[in-house]
Amino acid sequence: MQAAATGVFTFPMRVYWEDTDAGGVVFYANYLKFFERARTEWLRSLGIAQQKLREQTGGIFVVTSAQLEYLHPARLDDQLFVTASLKSAGRASLTIEQQALLVHSDSQSQESTPLCTGSIRIGWVDGTTMRPARIPNHILEQLS
Amino acid sequence: MQAAATGVFTFPMRVYWEDTDAGGVVFYANYLKFFERARTEWLRSLGIAQQKLREQTGGIFVVTSAQLEYLHPARLDDQLFVTASLKSAGRASLTIEQQALLVHSDSQSQESTPLCTGSIRIGWVDGTTMRPARIPNHILEQLS
Amino acid sequence: MQAAATGVFTFPMRVYWEDTDAGGVVFYANYLKFFERARTEWLRSLGIAQQKLREQTGGIFVVTSAQLEYLHPARLDDQLFVTASLKSAGRASLTIEQQALLVHSDSQSQESTPLCTGSIRIGWVDGTTMRPARIPNHILEQLS
Amino acid sequence: MQAAATGVFTFPMRVYWEDTDAGGVVFYANYLKFFERARTEWLRSLGIAQQKLREQTGGIFVVTSAQLEYLHPARLDDQLFVTASLKSAGRASLTIEQQALLVHSDSQSQESTPLCTGSIRIGWVDGTTMRPARIPNHILEQLS
Repeated sequence: MQAAATGVFTFPMRVYWEDTDAGGVVFYANYLKFFERARTEWLRSLGIAQQKLREQTGGIFVVTSAQLEYLHPARLDDQLFVTASLKSAGRASLTIEQQALLVHSDSQSQESTPLCTGSIRIGWVDGTTMRPARIPNHILEQLS
Repeated sequence: MQAAATGVFTFPMRVYWEDTDAGGVVFYANYLKFFERARTEWLRSLGIAQQKLREQTGGIFVVTSAQLEYLHPARLDDQLFVTASLKSAGRASLTIEQQALLVHSDSQSQESTPLCTGSIRIGWVDGTTMRPARIPNHILEQLS
Repeated sequence: MQAAATGVFTFPMRVYWEDTDAGGVVFYANYLKFFERARTEWLRSLGIAQQKLREQTGGIFVVTSAQLEYLHPARLDDQLFVTASLKSAGRASLTIEQQALLVHSDSQSQESTPLCTGSIRIGWVDGTTMRPARIPNHILEQLS
Repeated sequence: MQAAATGVFTFPMRVYWEDTDAGGVVFYANYLKFFERARTEWLRSLGIAQQKLREQTGGIFVVTSAQLEYLHPARLDDQLFVTASLKSAGRASLTIEQQALLVHSDSQSQESTPLCTGSIRIGWVDGTTMRPARIPNHILEQLS
């Protein structure tokens, strides 16, 4: 168990019926949904709104690779924290480290257990052609 | 139990982990996915490809109302038939009757049990403004 | 436009990439996900936790019918309010009225536009056999 | 472009509205759904039915890690082939190589382009406790 690291963006999420499967646990693809939500909220917290960005620049972020480790299952009604932190930024792609953590409701100290960890690389593309492009400078500045 | 009605478009579908929830059965929203797949394949069988239509006419079909009855649950690995049949067609909307039927694998006669029935009204809209418009004549002709 | 009605349970929700489709709007099945989340949070606000209930009573709520009207589309990054209010309660089923409302971010008065309305009937079943059963008394008391 | 490799299990799939997002392409999490469907059909082709297995042995397969590369986007109505092939098998886990390939409909030679590749490690767990266990011998024999 661990407390959420300082300086890491953390977004709370609840596990609903839609997230679970007949194994009684969160379906493995859905952690990519949770990670996307947390990345979007992390970007929003930095002043980067993706829908507006697209209207202004014509570009969108797309995921180019993902590495996921599934450590423990999450279940219906679980309270999760999902983190996002920038590991590296290049001219055309970002690498973001993410975790889905189970919050222990019976704990006063907000202890948590990592359930799924991910390393997600995202690139910037033209929203019409889907061709890679340089990340606009003002976005890179907002990220650093 | 009933055999699939004659003259009704029928599309086979399998229940996968992604479709189920922690109750061990297909999550209630996913029948709307199944129904959409069957409507799309029914349109395709009539020579109507939605992506091409959009490129040619700028319009898309959208659902304007849905009525669903959940009769029996579907489970992992179940083999389903999903039907679509045109109930009525107006200038701006279509009403489509749909069923998700469980196919009994131990039966020689392809007997099936209705699991979920739906009445889906779809309208035609401009794909950019999402404003209602008249269904193009050649589509109405292909449907009748 | 309308302000959210007094006395109605209201749950905030954001539209993410996972919720949208290639039409640029929220996929029609996903309103049933939004409605389920709001029903679960409404039950939780009344002290009813579904996972615990199942462990204690062996029973779960299932949806037996749904009627949906799609009025306006929701788009990426939209801020929604999703409501739930009990319309009627019997011994074996509840009918719940729900709305997904678009919150206007440029408005000081929290005005909102209904995007999708639903009338959802839920029944109580044995979680193993999925057979209908009477809703436990203590739940009916918590609801009224 | 490439023809599907000989000896690799291949499962056809169509891209529906539910699979796409507001970027006009398949949402990145959904390739994990496609890969799960193909793994399930590959197991079924080897005589391994997961729901029956669970009833007989109490165990289920779970994914313990996934590595994904996103090469090109898939779009609405695209016809895909999704592959699964066993890369390695241990006593407690399997590694499966998977690809989602775009089938070129205008090609007589069934040429295809890889859109997403994955390396998926799955383990065997007790379905109730979710604790790791040895893969039953008869499954390992069916796989080899």
